[in-house]
Amino acid sequence: MVRFENAFNSTLSKKAKKRVDTVFLAIKKEKSEKKVGYYSLPQKSKKLLKEINVYKKNNPFFSKQEINDIVIMGIGGSTLGTKAIYEALKHQYSQKRELHFLENCDSIQIEETLGKIKKEKTLFMVISKSGTTIETISIFKHILEEYKFDLSDQKQANQFVIITDEGSSLNAFANEYNIQQFFIPANVGGRFSVLSAVGVVPLSLMEFDVKALLKGAKEFGQSFFKKEQTSLLHKAYHYYKNINKQPINVMFTYSTRLQYFNQWYVQLWGESLGKKNELDKKVGLTPIGLVGSVDQHSFLQLIIQGPENKTVTFISIDDFGKKINIPKIKLPHLEKCDFANGSSFTKLLNAQCAATKESLEEEGIVVDEIKLTTLDEKNVGTLICYYEILTSVMGKFLKINTYDQPGVEFGKIKLVKKFEKR
Amino acid sequence: MVRFENAFNSTLSKKAKKRVDTVFLAIKKEKSEKKVGYYSLPQKSKKLLKEINVYKKNNPFFSKQEINDIVIMGIGGSTLGTKAIYEALKHQYSQKRELHFLENCDSIQIEETLGKIKKEKTLFMVISKSGTTIETISIFKHILEEYKFDLSDQKQANQFVIITDEGSSLNAFANEYNIQQFFIPANVGGRFSVLSAVGVVPLSLMEFDVKALLKGAKEFGQSFFKKEQTSLLHKAYHYYKNINKQPINVMFTYSTRLQYFNQWYVQLWGESLGKKNELDKKVGLTPIGLVGSVDQHSFLQLIIQGPENKTVTFISIDDFGKKINIPKIKLPHLEKCDFANGSSFTKLLNAQCAATKESLEEEGIVVDEIKLTTLDEKNVGTLICYYEILTSVMGKFLKINTYDQPGVEFGKIKLVKKFEKR
Repeated sequence: MVRFENAFNSTLSKKAKKRVDTVFLAIKKEKSEKKVGYYSLPQKSKKLLKEINVYKKNNPFFSKQEINDIVIMGIGGSTLGTKAIYEALKHQYSQKRELHFLENCDSIQIEETLGKIKKEKTLFMVISKSGTTIETISIFKHILEEYKFDLSDQKQANQFVIITDEGSSLNAFANEYNIQQFFIPANVGGRFSVLSAVGVVPLSLMEFDVKALLKGAKEFGQSFFKKEQTSLLHKAYHYYKNINKQPINVMFTYSTRLQYFNQWYVQLWGESLGKKNELDKKVGLTPIGLVGSVDQHSFLQLIIQGPENKTVTFISIDDFGKKINIPKIKLPHLEKCDFANGSSFTKLLNAQCAATKESLEEEGIVVDEIKLTTLDEKNVGTLICYYEILTSVMGKFLKINTYDQPGVEFGKIKLVKKFEKR
Repeated sequence: MVRFENAFNSTLSKKAKKRVDTVFLAIKKEKSEKKVGYYSLPQKSKKLLKEINVYKKNNPFFSKQEINDIVIMGIGGSTLGTKAIYEALKHQYSQKRELHFLENCDSIQIEETLGKIKKEKTLFMVISKSGTTIETISIFKHILEEYKFDLSDQKQANQFVIITDEGSSLNAFANEYNIQQFFIPANVGGRFSVLSAVGVVPLSLMEFDVKALLKGAKEFGQSFFKKEQTSLLHKAYHYYKNINKQPINVMFTYSTRLQYFNQWYVQLWGESLGKKNELDKKVGLTPIGLVGSVDQHSFLQLIIQGPENKTVTFISIDDFGKKINIPKIKLPHLEKCDFANGSSFTKLLNAQCAATKESLEEEGIVVDEIKLTTLDEKNVGTLICYYEILTSVMGKFLKINTYDQPGVEFGKIKLVKKFEKR
């Protein structure tokens, strides 16, 4: 279960209520018009699970080989969501099969990752929505050369999976060599695509409980569209109304497991909401991801005594599954630290979360908390859907296009020119 | 070599020049008064290197054992700097000996890390300036119990190293069991302590070239105090003058190697500068660390088209040491990505950095760049000293105490109370 505890439930003024209602209707419309497709992924991807099962059984490489490693070549929306879920939950699964991500054109990183795998026991996945992501395709070329793959040999082509948009250049490439493909719906943007083939395929091949993940997302979505999640709407309204006073939104997750979830959030929030609005004015909210208690020793001082330009959302987990107690050992001269003796590390972590939250509240900083009973697929699915919808709602308040990213295109043109010059 | 390329060198107004000169004198005074001790660490720590050599040769555990792993228990300033340097440079060293960090009270993380080591081949280090950091001491207790250590047996006590302030409770504890100790100078704060025993001891034991690290820092410091680094002063002045317009400072490092350097920067900048000033007004600058090109696909859109409330510093590396070329393979339908064929991954990464920088400049965003010729100890030492001094200079402009962190103390008291209640 996921509980949303926030102070945004207070009654709104008539005007505010009207604005919130308008936004809710706009989101409902957006969903029903299907130009924005992520809302229906929890439903749609169930079919995909069947396709994946067929692949698992029938693909000559996957079904016959003992696969130890899956290497994903992808960047941004093609990896952040999968990484977030994988890193949050992988400790619950056998460590026999590992998932690796080749994202950055950092030669040392590439070499390090490839040092961990064996060609014949590895499945390679190329993920790119547009199909022409320079980092991804360049690394793909390196893999082809490094391992002397000959894709015209069907046996070797079977060792690859490609995930892309239908009709993309990568789709055409995969057709050429008869490489296994899964498609991202055209109406689902990269950063909203984790519950499409982008996340569902690799996580299914890692034997994660993807059904539960989809269920968590689906149930939250249904509940939202039944207008049961008014606190989400009120929270977005608060962020919108106070955008100049509080332009920074901190996500403070109390678990090292969720550090990559923070990164997923940073992309979703930053890239979706940093836009020119209808009046050509630059708007946006700046996301920051922190991990407790580590960042209590780093960033917290700034939140408490620095400028009051931040809101903070705590994410905590009641039960990590694994319980280790702090031994009841009294060390001479270190008695000051005995207060936690006999408690579990989780209890200490959650008490730190609560103490920090109270400190911020006393300082008048706007905080809320999302509490997960346990760290599992269903709850992570809920969390994902919550943040996706919150982002869409914010976009409506800000009157922007939440789903494009025109600002990064200029740099891509400049990049190509740098190579033409030489 | 490290080159600082920025646009802050333009001539200042008379008034501004006066302000900058006043701050420079205040920093000089701060250094000479020795209440703030980090300025002299590059000099002071040379003596420490000799102490460490004696320990290496004579300590019965370290000199006799083949040590495969060093586990550091510490958090915040006790680990962030060491981790930054270790992760930036470890690929240049034999992978035989590994450094691990137990920072967070996350039971899964603790178990995972301990799963990688063998007790008899591991050196354990406890690092805490105050000596009573609850996370660190609790994890220390777990280690003692998990491995059934009996510290009253000198042979077993020899397997530990403690780094703390002279006179701290941890110092008294270590005396009790005759555990090897190294001290942090009392006038050096946690987040400024990486060039003290905190970083110098573990990095020396990992056989890093700590001498070069100290040299890089020392030379930069000397150059600054000879007033050769005016661009640093002008940059700080710009940040100070525009604190309301540009309250967010992004560090955009174009290398996965430097991702932990970002985290070190976030603590240094955030915790030092987020303070109540002389007039009890909350001031501060919000640090954000990004990694290129990954975050071009995540955060960049917000910088370009979101509110103009950010400055951006790029950090790039000319030569990573390791060169991998993008193969000259033409893949059918993917010709759009052929422009980088035959170039090295590093060239692509640096071209992305340059293209992104240009895009931001065209948008009128304030950017500068720090270029490292190579990634080595000396250049990392320079970078560390640059950021420490920049932070101190900012603190003088803001008229705050750069070196304390009063805001996080309230939470610590609340935490203890949560355990008393039960």
